[in-house]
Order: sequence, then C-alpha cells, then structure tokens
Amino acid sequence: MKLLSFEVDGSQRFGAWVEGGVVDLTQRLGAEFPDLLSVLQAQALPRIAEVLKGAKPDFDLENITFLPVIPSPPKIICIGVNYEEHRSEIGREPTLKPPVFGRFSNSQVAHLGVIPLPPESEKLDYEGEIAVIIGKAGRRIPVDQVWDYVAGYAPYNDASVRDWQGHTHQWTPGKNFLRTGGFGPWMSTADEFGNDPELHLSTRLNGMEVQRATSRQMIFSIAELITYCSTFTQLEPGDVIVTGTPGGVGARRKPQLFMKHGDVVEVEIAEIGVLRNRIEKEA
Amino acid sequence: MKLLSFEVDGSQRFGAWVEGGVVDLTQRLGAEFPDLLSVLQAQALPRIAEVLKGAKPDFDLENITFLPVIPSPPKIICIGVNYEEHRSEIGREPTLKPPVFGRFSNSQVAHLGVIPLPPESEKLDYEGEIAVIIGKAGRRIPVDQVWDYVAGYAPYNDASVRDWQGHTHQWTPGKNFLRTGGFGPWMSTADEFGNDPELHLSTRLNGMEVQRATSRQMIFSIAELITYCSTFTQLEPGDVIVTGTPGGVGARRKPQLFMKHGDVVEVEIAEIGVLRNRIEKEA
Repeated sequence: MKLLSFEVDGSQRFGAWVEGGVVDLTQRLGAEFPDLLSVLQAQALPRIAEVLKGAKPDFDLENITFLPVIPSPPKIICIGVNYEEHRSEIGREPTLKPPVFGRFSNSQVAHLGVIPLPPESEKLDYEGEIAVIIGKAGRRIPVDQVWDYVAGYAPYNDASVRDWQGHTHQWTPGKNFLRTGGFGPWMSTADEFGNDPELHLSTRLNGMEVQRATSRQMIFSIAELITYCSTFTQLEPGDVIVTGTPGGVGARRKPQLFMKHGDVVEVEIAEIGVLRNRIEKEA
Repeated sequence: MKLLSFEVDGSQRFGAWVEGGVVDLTQRLGAEFPDLLSVLQAQALPRIAEVLKGAKPDFDLENITFLPVIPSPPKIICIGVNYEEHRSEIGREPTLKPPVFGRFSNSQVAHLGVIPLPPESEKLDYEGEIAVIIGKAGRRIPVDQVWDYVAGYAPYNDASVRDWQGHTHQWTPGKNFLRTGGFGPWMSTADEFGNDPELHLSTRLNGMEVQRATSRQMIFSIAELITYCSTFTQLEPGDVIVTGTPGGVGARRKPQLFMKHGDVVEVEIAEIGVLRNRIEKEA
C-alpha cells in the first residue's frame, strides 16, 4: 500500500494512493483513526488493507495538497555519513557507530511544497535519502528481528543549510531550517518488499541526476541502524529513521552546486515514487 | 506561579505548587485545558493566575507522582559548551555560535523519577542546567524582544552517557538514553522574575556540590540563544531550550565521578526549586 497524509479544503486527512487517485481513509475510518500516525500506533495496517479492497479513488492527485507522510513523528532520527562515496567526499574518518542527529517536526515539508531559501544563507543543499518508518515499539531490537518493526519506506530530502550546519561540530541548526526536510509523496508499506529490500535511490536537480545509490551501499545497514538507535532510545510507531545520503551533494562538487530560487529538486526511490520540491527565496 | 505536571491514580494532570501542596488545575480547568502544554499554546497563564487566587491545595506533594514539567514538548533544544569553565575542562575551542543538539521527548524523566543506568555503559554523568520554556511562537526574534517569548524557567538534568556521546562527532545517542533528562519539579513563570534574571544553578551528587554557576556566566546569554534558535526554526509554545552545563561534570574530574546505582543527583535553581533523581541499574 502507498499511504499518505493530505489536505482538502483545509481539513487534514490520510489516504492511500491507488491507480487513478487517492482513496480518502479519513472519510472511511476517521472516527476510529484520525491520522496515519494513529493507524501505526494501533498497528492497524491490516485493517487499512481490508478497507482498501475494491475501494475507488475519491480525489485526483491534483485536487489534494500533500502533507509530510507523517506530519509530526514522535522522533525524526537522522543518520549521517552512511555511504562510502559521501564519507570520502566530505573527508570524514570512518566511525565504528553511525553519526546520529535529530530533526524537529516543523523542519519537514510535504511533496510539492516549497522549500524556502532563507535570507541567512546561500548554501542550501539537497540530500536524497531513504526514510524508514517504524511500525511497532521496541527497545534493543536484535538485528535479525528488526523487520517486524518496519512499517514502510519513503523518499526523504534531508536538505541542509551548509554554513549553519558547520557553525559548530553539532549539525542540528543547519539540519532544522523550517520546511527543509522533504518527506513524501507517500510511504510504501513493508509488505510490498521482502526483508532488507534493495531500494534504488536517486536525486535530481532541475532534471539532472546528482546522486544515485542503492540501500545495499549503506555503511550501516537498515537493520544495524534500527538495532543501534533502539539501544539508546525506545523506538515508537511513527518514528522515522532517515538513513543518510549518498555521494554527490552540492557542497562537495566542483564547482559547488547549491539550490537556488526556482530550482526543482527530486528524490526518487524507484520502487516507491518521486518526492518533488521547488525552492523559493523567502520573502 | 510554580506549574507542574503530575499523575494521581493513573490519571495525568497539571497543577500549581502553592504553600502546603498542589492545586489540581485539571479538576478546575480540564475541559478547557487538558494539560500544561495546552495552557501555553493558548497563552492562558493569566487565566491560571485568576483561578489560583485563594485556591487551596488539593494534594500533598507526597500524594502525587511528578511528570516531566512538559512531558512532550514540541522541541527540546539543547545547548552545549555554554560556560567557560566547562568549555575549558572539555578542551573545546570557542565557537562563534552555540553548539545545538536535540533531545527526544521519551528521553525525559520527572522529578523523583528513576534515571536508569543502562547495561551498555558505566559512564552516566550529570549535567545541571537551566531550562527556558517558550510561551509564544516566534521566528527570528530580535535579542531585545526575547522576553515576550519566555513562559518560565525550570531545573534540567541533561544526564549523558559519555561513551555513547562520543561514538561519533554527533552527541545525540549519548544525550537520548531513555529517561535520562530530568525536568522538574516545576517551572516558575517568567512574571516572577525581571527580564534576563540571574538564576543560581547548582548540582549535587549524594549531597556533595559538584557544579555551581549563575545564568550570568553563560557564554551565549538566554537572549542570544533564543535569537539564534529562532532563526533556523520557528519556536513554539512549550518548546524547551536547555541552556548548557557549567564546569564540574563527572567525566572531567580526577578521578572521574560517574553516577552509580543508588546515587541521588540534584539540580537546584535557588530561585525555583530542586530536581531530585535516583540512579538505578536497569534490570
């Protein structure tokens, strides 16, 4: 299933993308489940599958406004330096554990939403990534059991304001500018894949491919990331683990390639869909 | 006013500490305001003051179970290296901007709650800090206007698992072990202080003072922190800025002084109260 959050006439809803449009699940289930997060918290994906059987779309894609797949995840756990090509381009020494930082919910932006280029910087950079959405609470999850805890996958753009990321050794400010973290268009539920799926990730800026990798190339695998993160924290349904970006970021190109007013950035996971955002100079 | 969140008979409430006990504000206002966060979101502190006039306590302190002052803040923004004595003891070069990292909500623990010593580490360290609670949404708040945005102050213990903090250059894992971030016993509302108050912070381990400083000794003042953080993100009511720890942390003492099973750690802001937690080895 391809599950998404969206708005119609100013009311927030969730639904499923099916051939031809969007099935409104709030209309069908809203009394029981107000949003996608509540579905995950209740581990009710099988119920959704039931409801979707034979359901006809209620909206065309062009008649909805996308929201981030999960607008307010309990946690957005981001992984840095998780592809060898990116580690090498930024010149970081290998570490035995993955670098971890956080995003706040209001740093997220939906598919087709505008990523504002803030007046404070001209160094807004793309980072195409694979987001893993957690479906079940767990602590200290063994590597061979992590797949029971994955609800699905989605494209994520961990867009970064590079000079603010480098103000100090802690990256948080440059990773948390308002509406920079693209999350969408939808999540594909884990039942569409086997365990440890090979997902094909690519990023395009104005149509030109700038990043390409598969989940097999991660330094720390999805399974290892879930085990590591669930050791220090308790993972909860709706948590999002953003698994790191491949080589090819704009800051390390010669010449550098930062995102400018009017640019269109796309993050694609071939098996799932394309996340598209436009850059606009903030007024 | 001293406002707190607590539990009685398994039901979550909020209230005010007055001489002799706790006034139950959920009983008086629950239909309107389910929790302290909703009060802040509605900017309804004046309404609380009204209700408290002449109110008699409903509970003795020993009959309630404290919750973190705000159990699920929209953001917990933590500042590192913000006192000269601490900067010098950890050997960090000065930076022009403050180091910033995040805590997830489930890393918090209430006053009198147990901080678990996880089996993964023996390097659990205290960090007494002053927490600033935001009362009004704002972006790019000028330094001379920040005081309009502060709802209050509270003691915070940014307890840290030092080896996990140092796994990589990003501190997040060591700062987010479950139930390590003490937040309480209550917040004192900003109207009890002038702008830019001098708050007297100290930390005790088993009764022995290990840290002492005042808010005047911060490298980046509370006003500067609010301006900086509100530049990359939009601050929201209920956001918590944890403003950094003074010198004297356990990891930099000779010999090192980490927290062990049975230890009692206290963070006091003389003008507000004492946050007390006990360390227990996790089963």
